[in-house]
This record gives sequence, structure tokens and C-alpha cells, in this order.
Amino acid sequence: MSKLDRSHDPARRSWVAGADGHADFPIQNLPFAGSSGGVVVAIGNHALRLADAIDAGLGTGLGLDAGLFRDPTLNRYLRGTSAGDWTALRLAISDALADATWQPRLAPCLDPIDATVLQPAVTTRDYTDFYASIHHATNVGSMFRPDNPLLPNYKWIPIGYHGRGSTIVGDGTPIRRPAGQTRPAGDETPTVGPSRSLDYELELGIIIGGENAIGEVVPASQAMDRIFGVVLLNDWSARDLQAWEYQPLGPFLAKNFASTVSNWLVTRDALRPFEVPMPARPTSDPHPLPYLQVPEDVTWSLDLAVDLATAAMRDRGDAPFRVSSTRFATSMYWSPAQLVTHHASNGCALLAGDLLGTGTVSGPAPEARGCLLERTWRGSEPLALPDGTDRRFLEDGDEVSLSGRAMGGGAIPIGLGPCRGIVQSG
Amino acid sequence: MSKLDRSHDPARRSWVAGADGHADFPIQNLPFAGSSGGVVVAIGNHALRLADAIDAGLGTGLGLDAGLFRDPTLNRYLRGTSAGDWTALRLAISDALADATWQPRLAPCLDPIDATVLQPAVTTRDYTDFYASIHHATNVGSMFRPDNPLLPNYKWIPIGYHGRGSTIVGDGTPIRRPAGQTRPAGDETPTVGPSRSLDYELELGIIIGGENAIGEVVPASQAMDRIFGVVLLNDWSARDLQAWEYQPLGPFLAKNFASTVSNWLVTRDALRPFEVPMPARPTSDPHPLPYLQVPEDVTWSLDLAVDLATAAMRDRGDAPFRVSSTRFATSMYWSPAQLVTHHASNGCALLAGDLLGTGTVSGPAPEARGCLLERTWRGSEPLALPDGTDRRFLEDGDEVSLSGRAMGGGAIPIGLGPCRGIVQSG
Repeated sequence: MSKLDRSHDPARRSWVAGADGHADFPIQNLPFAGSSGGVVVAIGNHALRLADAIDAGLGTGLGLDAGLFRDPTLNRYLRGTSAGDWTALRLAISDALADATWQPRLAPCLDPIDATVLQPAVTTRDYTDFYASIHHATNVGSMFRPDNPLLPNYKWIPIGYHGRGSTIVGDGTPIRRPAGQTRPAGDETPTVGPSRSLDYELELGIIIGGENAIGEVVPASQAMDRIFGVVLLNDWSARDLQAWEYQPLGPFLAKNFASTVSNWLVTRDALRPFEVPMPARPTSDPHPLPYLQVPEDVTWSLDLAVDLATAAMRDRGDAPFRVSSTRFATSMYWSPAQLVTHHASNGCALLAGDLLGTGTVSGPAPEARGCLLERTWRGSEPLALPDGTDRRFLEDGDEVSLSGRAMGGGAIPIGLGPCRGIVQSG
Repeated sequence: MSKLDRSHDPARRSWVAGADGHADFPIQNLPFAGSSGGVVVAIGNHALRLADAIDAGLGTGLGLDAGLFRDPTLNRYLRGTSAGDWTALRLAISDALADATWQPRLAPCLDPIDATVLQPAVTTRDYTDFYASIHHATNVGSMFRPDNPLLPNYKWIPIGYHGRGSTIVGDGTPIRRPAGQTRPAGDETPTVGPSRSLDYELELGIIIGGENAIGEVVPASQAMDRIFGVVLLNDWSARDLQAWEYQPLGPFLAKNFASTVSNWLVTRDALRPFEVPMPARPTSDPHPLPYLQVPEDVTWSLDLAVDLATAAMRDRGDAPFRVSSTRFATSMYWSPAQLVTHHASNGCALLAGDLLGTGTVSGPAPEARGCLLERTWRGSEPLALPDGTDRRFLEDGDEVSLSGRAMGGGAIPIGLGPCRGIVQSG
């Protein structure tokens, strides 16, 4: 699909000890994360301090401003650059980490990842959540509207809504169970208290680079070039609050108490070897409207999973329980490029660092459903856990871990970074 | 209601020429606006450069950092301060502008407002729009759900949803008509093109000061102290896009192409003389749940209005046509404090500069309906304009101007600043 360069060469090796063969961060990945000391790049078990590396000569000739990378996040850099710049920076980093003559200059810029306090690679002002998995939309719709699961607009328009920027948190941040209004079935009067139906949502988050002004669209042919990369996204949801509040304007307090993203941002460039065509739509489905027709449209060959570990399981040293695993590429009705171009089709300004969640990624099989609402079918089919308990929804002490791996195409597999949260009592 | 101080004294006069008797900005108002050169305060027809005034001695003893006010907006200042600080700063400004011995030091800090390029007083990261006018909710509900206009949750929970931060613009910014998908009644297939049902929405916008951390609530008794002030807000809406896209997750592209706020931010302190009790609810309505019970709950005695001037009317020098006028205090089912405390009731972090729209402010009478959707009853009752045309929805060249005045209680009336936008072809 996309043009590959030497940074994608499966034979490329790094002089950084432990990088070759690393499950997540071989030299073919090179994801970014934020930290109070500046932006870092993962190589194996190490974090490269990018500003220091530029000061040491990395990227000479690219006109890079090292100071931008002393910011805790990539936002300022992404505001003023575009896809060609990002590709050139990646290549410079890859070349330097592949060529042992750079070791004397760059080894002092490496820290063990474990010794670095990471934060998300970007600060998000505007967070949009889509609803792009048709299996998720059909499952949820059939619970709430049994005779009308998929609404008439679904196959025409990528459904989305705005989430909250202020409550986006990084990997490992504890999640406090929210309180709110619920109205139990059959009751006349709502009650207030901690949510009893706390859920996770397995999503992929698209991170925007560059900026279009208000009133400017992003044509379908240019949409992929506005995607700087992706993160894992857990859009925690309180289903009981959601059911009571969401009519007629959509989810609000049921969703905006916390959304966890992985700190590591895997670039679109790193994902190029894993680009695959969007699955063909059934011939009975409508053809996308012209503005949503993306030339050679692609998605990513990504395996995503959710693991759950209760406090008791962690105490006993049990392995986490795999709640679900799903394939991104075949779960989505709308492609990444379609989400971007649709979002800007009314002239909405997309800004550097914006987060576009795909919505819950659910495949057709029960074990491929990306949230407990679907996985336990609204609590009616509880999951039996290794510690002898079962789960309809999340309980205090539960740790939810999202993970993702890109594989296939003869390329070296790469991993998305961890995206974890432990539920605390509300 | 609230404690008044000498800054509210109706007898207070200013040494600034033209301030006394100014319709909007007498010394009893003192609203803030942003500018590239720093934050300014309105006094009559003049803008006081606040940082320069502090350098000249204003507020000595308050520990003010003049540098914060050289920022183009108030965000940094509002992040680290609270209600007591805001009151003290207002009093210092009022005292200095009332006492002619300050004239030699402060006159050099004054510019004509007309010579200053203003911008909104704060940058908003998270914009939430509520639905707090029961007349608006009932009118809109009866168009879309004739047998079920007001949903069962309305009188229990303040309904709200998230809007978009990146497309908030200041007074006078041209508004480009958005394009998007619509599905005309009876058609099977949607079409794409410029909206044919572009509308305004007359709203009041609450601006948040201070910050609560994720997981912290804002108790009802403290909610008013998180309100730094208010702006006028026009939440432009494309009704045809909205009707097709909004199920099941709420409005998205129909709303996020532009939202206009007044550049002048009128403080909660300036509105204290205009505080009035929230209207009593009908005895048949539910009593607010405990977390929504605000001690001595108040709203503001504000008259709001919408004026419309077509391009032809402006060319001919016609006065704008008053489309609607409404009273804020008696139009709202939920109070400002209730909106704030509800928003944070799940631990959602409210940050300095956040914008909480009230939703369209509609009173019970037809001429008090705050958007064209209601005013023309979905286009079925067009408005006849002085230039001989009529309006179902907005046409290119139309200028919409929102205005607001606080009156009553023996106080000097004050005005909210202008909030205008001209529709451009899409």
C-alpha cells in the first residue's frame, strides 16, 4: 500500500542493547511519549531523550528545533509540521539508532523506560468519539432497540460525538468509580450513588497532526496525512448513568469522568507495513457518498485485546484473564481516513493533538466484543474469572489492560504501549 | 442575595470620560476581554490595559503578577485563583477608576475600545452545552416527538453534552455556512450540500474559574464560587444536518462548525445586584435530588435579545429586526449553580476557561423563543422582515446579533458585550 523506506526494513538492527527482537519496540516501531523532561522515543527497553539527541546531531539538516522537544508533549511540534516532516524525522531517528557510529553520541541520551515517568505524547484539546464498529453498534442497538438495532443513518454517515479533554489520563492512572443518577427498571424515582455498571471500552485513538483552519475541509485524499499516529484508548463508561441521561443529546457524565490513553504514540509511519485494504462492503450496502470515497482506502492489521485482573488475582500472582481479543481491520465499517475527512467536512478545525476515538472495537464473535456491556450481554451472561468470582461489570480493584500488536505482511511485529487502569471505589 | 460592596454602589462615578451613564460599561460593570497585547477591562468607551495598570500601582498589596495579564487571555490567572481573589481585583479596579487621584497614573493605560482588537477573554478547552430552558426543551421535543415532548429524565437531571473547543470564535467572526449530509423527508438516500436550515441559538455561557482535580466534586454550596462570569453565546446549528446525524449519540457536525461568544466577559461579581431567586417549581414537579439542592439558589435578572439584519437591510441603513427577546431568570429550569455542581458530580474536572452553555434560552411566549427552529416553528411560520423578505432559517448575508442587559434591584443597569456574526455562503 504505502511507500516503505529503509526504516521499515525487517533486516534493520539497532545498536541499543535489547532492541532487536523486542516484542513491542524494535527499531521498526519508534513510538513517542511525553515526560516532564521532554519528548522521548522508545527503542527496546530504553527511552531516547529526543531534544538531547538533536543537540547531539540527530537530524542535522532537517532544521529541527530541539527546544520543541523539551516541551512535555509533541503539541507544538505537530502544530507546525506535516506528514513529510514526520517521515523525515522518523528516518533520521531510525538511521541513527541503526548505525553504531552514533552510539558514542546517543548512548548518553538513553534512559531505561522504567526510570522515566511517562505521560501521553500529546495533550488533547478536543476529543471526538466515533461509533465505527458495526458489530458494536449492532450489539448495543439490539439491546436498547430490539426491533431497530442499526439506525437508518449508520451506513451513510460516520456517527460520532464529542467527549471531554480535561479527563484524559495516561497509562496506569487509577480510575475512581463515578457517582451519578440512575433509575433502576420499574422505579419512578432516580437514585444517586456510585455506578453499579462500570465498564471499559476497547478503542483505537487516532492522533491528529497539523491544523486546518475553521471553514477548511480535509479532502479524503489528504486525510491519512493528517493522522500522526495512534494510541490505545479505554473510554470508561458507567452504563447505568448512561441509560438514564443519554436521551436526547447523547452520553455526558456516563463517559466524561475518565478516558485512559497509552502514553506511547505509535506513528502512522510505523504502521505503514501493516496497512491493508478496507474490507469490501456487502453489495447491498450503500456506496459511500463522494466526499467519503478515499482513494485506495486502508486500515491497519492490528490485533487488540483486553485483559482483566482482579485484586485477588494480582495478590495470588495469577495471570490476567483475557476478556476479549479482536481484529481492528475487520471490525470497522468506517476507515481512519473516512473518520478524519467526515469530521472536517463541515469546516470543523482539527488541531494538533486532537484525539479521534474509533468507538468500541468489536468483532462478530462473542469473544471479540470490546466492552463488558456486550461481552456479558448487559450482565445476563457473566464471565467466570480464575479467582472464582464472576463479572457482569467492573468491581473495585479490577485492573483493565488494553494491548495491541501490528502483525503481518512479512514485517517485524510492533506493539502499542500499555493502557492500564485500576478501578477505585467511588 | 449576595453581599454587595462599594463597587456596586449606584452612586459610584468614574473619572474616565463617557463612563458614567454608559449603557453597557459603567463603572459598576468592569468586564474583561482578551487581546494580543494582554487582558483589558472595559470602562465606558475605553479599554484599560490591566497589566500596565498593575505596573502603575493598581492592586498594590494584592500580590498580583502583572505578567499574567500580558497573556492574551485570563486562563493562567483563573487557574491559580478563586472567588475571593476575583472580588478583590474587581474592587481594586473599581476604586482606582472612581478616584480621580489615579487619573495621572492610569490614563496612559486607556485606549479607545474601537482602537483595540479584542478576542474572547478566555480560551476554552472544554465546552459543554446544557438544555436548561424547559420551554426550549418542550418546544423542540414537541416537533420531533409530538406525543412525548419532554422526556422522563428532564425534570430530574440537567441534560447536557459536549461541544467543540476548536471552533469557538469571538464577536464579529464571519460564519461560513456548513455543508453536510441531510436526508429530505421521504427520500431514501441522503444528499450532501450546504445546510438549508442554518439557525442561531441564543444562550448564556458560564465561564469557569479555578480547577477541581479529576475525581473531586463541586458541592452545590460552592458551585457559584466556580463561576467567574458569563458571556453571550450563539451556538450556530444546522438543523437539517442535525436531524439526520443526531441519533443515537447526539449532535455533532450540525453544531461544531462554529460557536460565537462575546469577547467581553461580565463577572459574577458585576451580576451580584441582579441576583434573584430561582423561580419556584410547580408543586407537581419532583423536588431536586439532594446533590442538586443549592442553598439560597439564585439566577440573574437578565434581558436577552436577538436581532437580525439582512444584507439588504444593512445596505439601506435599516435598523435590525428584533427576532426575539426573553428573560433569562424565568426561562430556566436549572440554575447556574445546579449546572456546575451537576457537571462535576461524577468527578469531572472543570478547568479555568471552560464554557458551560445554558442551551437555548426560550421563554413561554412565541416572541421569546431563542432560535429560528422554534420562532418559525420549524419553518412553518416564516418571519416577515422589513426588507420585504421572509425567513424560515438564515440566509447568506444575514447578521445575527445577540445582546443582554442586567437590570433591576435599584442597581445601575449593565450590558453584556456584543455577540455578532454574518453568515457567509458555504
